[in-house]
This record gives sequence, structure tokens and C-alpha cells, in this order.
Amino acid sequence: MTDTEKLAAQVNSLTLEESTNPPATDDDDDDQIVDPWQVVSKSGKGVDYNKLIKKFGSTRIDDALLERFEKVTGHKPHHFLRRGIFFSQRDVHFILNCYEAKKPFFLYTGRGPSSEAMHLGHLIPFMFTKWLQEVFDVPLVIQMTDDEKFLWKDLAAEEALRLTYENAKDIIAQGFDVNKTFIFSDMEYIGTCPAFYKNMLKIQKCVTFNQVKGIFGFGDSDCIGKISFPATQAAPSFSNSFPHIFGENDAGKVPCFIPCAIDQDPYFRMTRDVAPRLGYPKPALIHSTFFPALQGAQTKMSASDPNSSIFLTDTQKQIKTKGIAEADETTPPSHDSFHQKIPTLPQPSCEHPLNIPVPFDLFETNSHEDGSD
Amino acid sequence: MTDTEKLAAQVNSLTLEESTNPPATDDDDDDQIVDPWQVVSKSGKGVDYNKLIKKFGSTRIDDALLERFEKVTGHKPHHFLRRGIFFSQRDVHFILNCYEAKKPFFLYTGRGPSSEAMHLGHLIPFMFTKWLQEVFDVPLVIQMTDDEKFLWKDLAAEEALRLTYENAKDIIAQGFDVNKTFIFSDMEYIGTCPAFYKNMLKIQKCVTFNQVKGIFGFGDSDCIGKISFPATQAAPSFSNSFPHIFGENDAGKVPCFIPCAIDQDPYFRMTRDVAPRLGYPKPALIHSTFFPALQGAQTKMSASDPNSSIFLTDTQKQIKTKGIAEADETTPPSHDSFHQKIPTLPQPSCEHPLNIPVPFDLFETNSHEDGSD
Repeated sequence: MTDTEKLAAQVNSLTLEESTNPPATDDDDDDQIVDPWQVVSKSGKGVDYNKLIKKFGSTRIDDALLERFEKVTGHKPHHFLRRGIFFSQRDVHFILNCYEAKKPFFLYTGRGPSSEAMHLGHLIPFMFTKWLQEVFDVPLVIQMTDDEKFLWKDLAAEEALRLTYENAKDIIAQGFDVNKTFIFSDMEYIGTCPAFYKNMLKIQKCVTFNQVKGIFGFGDSDCIGKISFPATQAAPSFSNSFPHIFGENDAGKVPCFIPCAIDQDPYFRMTRDVAPRLGYPKPALIHSTFFPALQGAQTKMSASDPNSSIFLTDTQKQIKTKGIAEADETTPPSHDSFHQKIPTLPQPSCEHPLNIPVPFDLFETNSHEDGSD
Repeated sequence: MTDTEKLAAQVNSLTLEESTNPPATDDDDDDQIVDPWQVVSKSGKGVDYNKLIKKFGSTRIDDALLERFEKVTGHKPHHFLRRGIFFSQRDVHFILNCYEAKKPFFLYTGRGPSSEAMHLGHLIPFMFTKWLQEVFDVPLVIQMTDDEKFLWKDLAAEEALRLTYENAKDIIAQGFDVNKTFIFSDMEYIGTCPAFYKNMLKIQKCVTFNQVKGIFGFGDSDCIGKISFPATQAAPSFSNSFPHIFGENDAGKVPCFIPCAIDQDPYFRMTRDVAPRLGYPKPALIHSTFFPALQGAQTKMSASDPNSSIFLTDTQKQIKTKGIAEADETTPPSHDSFHQKIPTLPQPSCEHPLNIPVPFDLFETNSHEDGSD
């Protein structure tokens, strides 16, 4: 066992109660805002993930789950799992049961294309999903929510669609199984698949304005497109939204497993609430922490603030101007340089006790594609 | 000039100010409810259409318009027009300008398929639209809002789709130009046309919850599907929702002309508000009165109350049990019998001074397809 692994084991043996973070109370709800559109923490330590788990009602990934994962799949858990970057889940045991029983299931993740290129933070779910697809050898659907970005941003519909295509390049570059991966633009796919639209309607019928107000904080002055959009992000959780993958006669019973950053959980809490009423299985989830902004862990890398993020298309020169002094045209950045240049990057909570800032974890992965450290 | 025509001319010469109906005030807003889901009047005289015109802000169809219609088209106005069954309009002069200038435009009407068969009231817009299509020789789109009925009613999606097909038979039976008419189910068409979905999104982005609350009376406990549905009914008003008719490069500039009962006006007030912001022309409208229920003019024939309506599939026997005593298997109903059996049918307002109940007008039409009396 390497030092890293020993430390990781220590982390995994921690329970929520032993965490140094105070338990969440209603009193300090204002200390952090985490929803699909913003991640802000007042604390210099960054987001309190224990609090989020408690607030969202998800389950911390524990040693037992990682052990079972290894036992069932024969694969050592990805280092994103061992290091607690994926730290929270819903019903992953159910997915392992399916795998064990050789029952079909599928993966679903997505991206809201709001920028020309993706940044490092966006890669986390995709890198992890790629690994999950290798481990499980199952179909994967990737939803590009250009409709969402059109509705939320000052963006023409045509521009949102263009960004979908740009971002899809970054996603394709992760190297998913080309025979088992379906990347789709909402703006294009919904208009080619009546079954998808039918699922949108079925979900829309089950959810009231009061509910989306409670879950997403929508208000009376929000446009009606935003208000109904959660049904669009929920629809890919049900297999019969993809008749070309699961067959025309599929009744939507193939379970779904969703890797995503935890800010997307509200969509899928809603989906899990609706699923049984439609006779569909609840999607299982696995949640990642956020990728801290270059300015510090109080917020995450965001495409809308270019200075907060390193984009996949940034040149060495651009990265340099963002404060990564050692980055230049000739020398690839060293791990040490990241350590030095992101000094404000704190350990967000107990799942990062290794004193390794997240960017290191990421770059490290490029040379260890099998998920080992 | 026949007696009927003389009377019709007198009606048309009346102005709003001369009407015997009191002008609408906020105080008596409760006397009648007219929206896409209910038509109820406290008055035994039925709906006060002058009040509706004032409330909705539309324009009464006047002699000058009918004269211009005849002059421009070379067709005597349909008796539904001369008798004031179509009594209100928005921008019909603009449509006549287009026709005069040989500029293209199209017709749009629709049906929410909530019953196995359509009833007499449903026929009004379709019979009139068929005549308009003959006069103008333009494309016609007919939207079957099975998605709406699914969202509003205790109806499975599949059942709503089935009713679309059933109702489409009744519509097809009107004899539209098969080469220029497109009847579509929302549930099916939206999933085959990305351009339609894109227009839905564009409209959804322009309309807030506050606005649909004001226009349609939606509340917090309404499902999110209802809240965004108005965009779906608005979308066919824009020609680029139909690239297979107007071409892939159509920019949505072909004007639209919508014949409908006046309860549908709220959808198109909203559409007309949104259109210029999207760079599209405002749809023009022509509004019909309601077809009174068999129980009287306080409400309209409604598919949800079979006793209120005569359905196109009703047998003579069924019609008999609904109170039309003279209807039997051998003798077609006479006009007099309708007079006797619908004694509560009042003159709804000044546009029906001919003492001819609406059912008469309808049956009459079968023998006068050219729209003459």
C-alpha cells in the first residue's frame, strides 16, 4: 500500500460524525449556495460537502461500497473514488446488483454548452464516466443541454447549438466507446424523437410550479422555458427516451446510472421522485465535488468567468496570464508549479486530506488512464 | 336582398356603442368566464360578446371589412361572417392586403382531442377554415394538441394520441384541400421537427410565469407542463415551424391567419406580443362565437359533458335522448324541431338578432357549401 493509498484508506474510514465540519443546520444555510447555476461558499475552506449530503439527502461513499465495487467489477476503484472526488451517491449498490446479475443498465451524463471550449472542471464527470463505461461496458448517453443555455443565457438558439458541436469535440476527445456512446443536442434530438418528447410531457405532468420553486428557486418572473426545463434534463434518465438504443418496444425499465457534479443533484432528486409514478426505475447517481476556481475554493471553475478556469483550448501563454507562471510554450506544467501557483486552494473538506490540489489529480490522470494512482 | 340579408346588414351597421349590452367594467367581470378551458355566463342571454371584444382588445367585424373582403377576394362573405358567428378579428385587413398583393400567407387552426368524436361546436372553425382555404387557396396547418389534453385531463399519453387520430377523421371529412393541408399531432410532430421545438423554446424564453398567470390564470399548483404549453400552441403561428411546407430556409416571415373560437384568443394575444421580439409577423385572427350547449347559452357545447353536445358519431336515437324529440332514424331533424327543442337558446347578443338558433345555421350549411344562405 502506497502512502497515498494509506491516507485514502484513512479518509474512507472517516464517518460523517467524525468530520471536522459542523453538521448542517438551518441557521447556516446562507453560508453556501449550491444549485445548478451557482456554487458559492462564504468559507475560505470551500463548500462543506457534509452539509450538502445532509441537505440533499444523499449517501456518502464509504469503504464498504468501494470494496464491493472492486469485488463485483474486478476493477480497483478509480482514484477519483479513492480520493473522494466522487464522494456521494444514491443507489449505487442497486447498479452493482444489476451488474452482478448481468442485468442491463446504462450511463447518462451531460453538459450545458455555454462556452467555446470546456474547462478542467467540466472534465471530471466525463473522465470518470469514460472509466465507468470501460468497467461496465454499457451504453452511455450524453445530453448537451443547448436548450437550457439558450433559455438561461443571452445566447441565440443557433449559437447554443454551435457551442454544442464545439464542446462535443472536447467530449469525444475523452475516448468513449464509439459503438456504445450517444451524444445528443436537445435542440436537435428532441425534434427527431417523439418518445423523448412524450417522456418530457409525462414528467411535466407530475411536477408543479410549487415543486420547481422549492427545488430550483424559480420565481414568478422566470420564463416558462426555465420552469419546464427540469423535465428535459430528467427525460434521459428513462431508457425509452432512446428507442434507437433500447428498441422501439422498450418500456423505460432499463436502469440508469448518472455520474455528475453534485450541483446537478436537484434535477435528479426530482426525477427520482417522479420515476415510480411513471412506472420507471429511479436513476442511481454518483456525485463529484466541484473543481475549485483558480481564485480559490469559495466557488468553482466557471465558463462564464474565464479567469476562474483553465480551458481545454487555452494556450500555455493564456494559462500563464491566469497566474500559472511556470506554464510556457516549451515546458509542460509540473505538479509543483500547480502547488505553488494555486496557493489559495484549500482542502475543501475531509475528503481532500492528501494536500494535493484538484488540478494535480486531473493532470495526473493523463498518464494513468486505468484509474490507478 | 333577402330578409335575412337585410337583418344581417342592420346588425353589421350597429356599432359597439349602440349595442344594448352594457359596456364591460371591472365590476361585472365575474358575470362571465371565458378562457380556453371554460365558458360560463351567469346571464341567461349567454356570453356578452361586446364585453369580450372590449376585454380582449380585438376588433368587431364591421360592414367595411365584409365589403372589402368581397371586393378583394371576389367571394361573397360566408354566412358565418354575415350572421356574425365570426364576429371579431385582429389584422384581417393585413391578410387581405397580402392576398391583394399576391403575397403568401397560411391558415392555422386546431383541435384539442379530448373526446372520441367531435361535436357540432367543434365544426364551426373547421367549416369556416375550409371555406377560407377555398377562397384564398393557401396552405393550412391543423394542430392537434394531444399534449395539452394529456396535461390537462386524466388521460394517458397514448389515449390522447389515439383521440387525435379519431378526431382527425372528423376533420378530414370536412374536405380540406389534400395537397395544401397538414394535420399534425403535437406528440408526434414535435418529435420529428427540430425547427418546431426551436420555436417553442424561443417563445418560452419570451414569456414569464407572471405573464401566463395573468393571461391564463395558472397557479403555483399547476404542473410545469401546463405552464409552458402556451408556447406549443403559439409555435404553429410562425411559418418556419413547418420547414417541409415553407422550405428549410424560411425565416418564419410568412404571415399566419387563424380562425378560431374566441376562447382561444388568449394564446394568440400572447403570440402576437412575442412575435415582433422574435422577428416574426403577428398572426392575424378571426374569432367565432360559441356554440351553445343543448341546455342553453350560459355555456357552450363541451366534449366533457356529452349531454351538452351533439357528437358527429351520435345516432338519431342518441340525439333523441338528448331532447331532440323529432330526431329519428327516418326523418332528418327539421329546423323547426330545433327551434322547439332548444327553447332556452336565447339571442346571445346583437349579432344574433335573426331569431335563428346556431344549430340551424350549422345544419343549413350542409346544403349550401359555397357559404350562401
